[in-house]
Amino acid sequence: MDNNGEPMALAKFLSSALARVRPLPSIDLDLTAACGCVLASDVTAPGPLPAFDHATVDGYAVRMEDVSSATPQRPVSLKVLGDVSAASWRPVRLIEGTCFAVAAGAVLPVGTDTVIPMSWTDEGMAAVQVGQVPKRGHGLRHAGEDAGSGEVLATEGRHITPQLIGLLAAAGVGDVVVRPTPRVVLIATGDELMDTGRVSQPGQLVDANSHALTAAASEAGAHAFRIGICDDEPEALRTVLDDQTLRADFIVTTGGTGTGPGDMVRRTFGRDKTVEFSPVAVYPCSTIGFGSVGPEEVPIACLPGDPGAAMIAFEVLVRPLIMRLAGAEPVFRQSVKANLIEPVTSPSHYREFRPAHVAERRGGGYTVAPLPGGPYTLSGIAQATGLMVLGEKVTTAPAGSTIDVLLFDRHR
Amino acid sequence: MDNNGEPMALAKFLSSALARVRPLPSIDLDLTAACGCVLASDVTAPGPLPAFDHATVDGYAVRMEDVSSATPQRPVSLKVLGDVSAASWRPVRLIEGTCFAVAAGAVLPVGTDTVIPMSWTDEGMAAVQVGQVPKRGHGLRHAGEDAGSGEVLATEGRHITPQLIGLLAAAGVGDVVVRPTPRVVLIATGDELMDTGRVSQPGQLVDANSHALTAAASEAGAHAFRIGICDDEPEALRTVLDDQTLRADFIVTTGGTGTGPGDMVRRTFGRDKTVEFSPVAVYPCSTIGFGSVGPEEVPIACLPGDPGAAMIAFEVLVRPLIMRLAGAEPVFRQSVKANLIEPVTSPSHYREFRPAHVAERRGGGYTVAPLPGGPYTLSGIAQATGLMVLGEKVTTAPAGSTIDVLLFDRHR
Repeated sequence: MDNNGEPMALAKFLSSALARVRPLPSIDLDLTAACGCVLASDVTAPGPLPAFDHATVDGYAVRMEDVSSATPQRPVSLKVLGDVSAASWRPVRLIEGTCFAVAAGAVLPVGTDTVIPMSWTDEGMAAVQVGQVPKRGHGLRHAGEDAGSGEVLATEGRHITPQLIGLLAAAGVGDVVVRPTPRVVLIATGDELMDTGRVSQPGQLVDANSHALTAAASEAGAHAFRIGICDDEPEALRTVLDDQTLRADFIVTTGGTGTGPGDMVRRTFGRDKTVEFSPVAVYPCSTIGFGSVGPEEVPIACLPGDPGAAMIAFEVLVRPLIMRLAGAEPVFRQSVKANLIEPVTSPSHYREFRPAHVAERRGGGYTVAPLPGGPYTLSGIAQATGLMVLGEKVTTAPAGSTIDVLLFDRHR
Repeated sequence: MDNNGEPMALAKFLSSALARVRPLPSIDLDLTAACGCVLASDVTAPGPLPAFDHATVDGYAVRMEDVSSATPQRPVSLKVLGDVSAASWRPVRLIEGTCFAVAAGAVLPVGTDTVIPMSWTDEGMAAVQVGQVPKRGHGLRHAGEDAGSGEVLATEGRHITPQLIGLLAAAGVGDVVVRPTPRVVLIATGDELMDTGRVSQPGQLVDANSHALTAAASEAGAHAFRIGICDDEPEALRTVLDDQTLRADFIVTTGGTGTGPGDMVRRTFGRDKTVEFSPVAVYPCSTIGFGSVGPEEVPIACLPGDPGAAMIAFEVLVRPLIMRLAGAEPVFRQSVKANLIEPVTSPSHYREFRPAHVAERRGGGYTVAPLPGGPYTLSGIAQATGLMVLGEKVTTAPAGSTIDVLLFDRHR
């Protein structure tokens, strides 16, 4: 509770949580292993790219002045001094009236200013007839055309994509300084929980949370470790945490965050002050905790046990913190304006994140509609393509109004 | 070549390649292991969801008729017969004038029609004073409200998302029948290739392709295996392929697809007819091959060696085939219309896929602009957020015209 007993505004809660979590210390990683990570420093080209002048087509390396008069009717004949493959490294030199047969990728003979494509010639071996002449400079690329030595190829904060790996590798970069992939540990708490593969019976509840959130953390780019089920025993929870703080960059629990007598997570952390359970003015997951545990001060988020509320709390709190640990900016999902198809109501004083069907309109822009199965049912959430964001002052939004929505990732 | 010597239309080439590749045979996987996979059959609920009537809030399970007269001025007192936690399984029954304290998730005592939230009462232990009454049915959910037993929870062809894992796990599903993740093997060919971490020298070229394409295949959802560099020796290539066809669902090579004397991949496969090298009317990667190798008839795509052309060929040919193997629909990236910011030219008779900067407009819709570093440089491609698609008949597109673009994935 805030001092005045009101729930804490979500913006305040989130900015305080984000301020307590810093990007992970950077590490040096092999380029390929770093895909998906965020650069922790600028990357400069160790040499020019391309590294040397080379042919871009299979053809004949020539001096333009030797062939400029060629026409199909009056072809020019050049002596072929030799073949240069892409793997040839010996320096060779053109002299007047000669050429070299070169492969795409081959270093250019000294004196070359143009490469005539194979198919524009008679493809001769000892001598070649050139009947058609391209512009000077055709068929070759100069060293450094793509990037000069020392040029910044990618700046701090960029995600390493497959395309960036292509650029960096080609320029001679072998490893990069990045934020490592955050290691996130997921723990579901509750005496009633049982593992998947059976239908719940009274007194039991299938642990859907640790499975769904482990997958969600992986999808957010984390190395996610599902610890599974922890009984409602403070000692059991403390033992698990002692174990996990050694490897985890972030711990996420579900269940036991309410104010009832059985709410073990809240009671366990209630004694020390390192995890705070301010009720937060966010719907449907107001009973969330955030703080740190262990001498390593590992960040911990305690989410409600209701699977719908847990999924939303993951989106609202956990995903941005994973992004922050990974050094990614922005930490929030892409937000767009969307036209509301059907009216919705929303609790006053609470910022609501409601799973919804967001669609792109043919003419541009987005529409958003409530889910037929109800907003916080698991069947509804499984259909959602985004989240409506209904502010603290919104109690009703009529059809046709424009509202903010957060977009889930496109499916592959 | 087509019979008439013209390059083959891309649409024809792609539909023929896609027709030769079928989704991988389905397997039964643990739900969590299946995240990202595509369902190969419908999934039905093994029981109702929720599995039993339960409280959704911490409070008191009552019969409405016992409390309907309650007001803050004249509260009603009920005897509390006991506590029901979420882990309690013993059936209990309400009798007139009594209630049970229930935790969120607890099975409802027989006779309950409403759960009064804890905070609306004096939170009494032996007896409770109720001073405010919700609507009948408040604070509880009935068995099967979310899904009935036997109801279809997800249909064949759906991607398994974290949210769907939540739904399926909660309903009692433990494993699912999916298309496995395709295993894709990447091989770069060329005597000139060397591994990353050094700047190329004449006669050498850093193998950027196998690294970039391995990352791209992973990003497309494959288990990608980088075999690395294969020299321009037909026997070396055949040995690698013999090895890899045992585990690979799909093999991708780069380099050696041209018509020159050093184009080893094309020459090696030129002898048998299982890999075809029709020139395809697609820019900048017209020299591509597709077919199958080994007694297992593993699909193989042979991409050009130029890193820019290889990346585009991956997008045009390899990524759709990975999607097909995975059972995903659609196999192509999302295509949108975009407003062209600057004029572009494009080769006639070829369908061009040009890396570009695609952006969403504030007011809705998309804009697309050429890349400052040139379309097929590696620095350009590393900046791209999508691909312009410039059709066979397009030779110039003026600023302001509307063109098709394929969108790359959003960054996390």
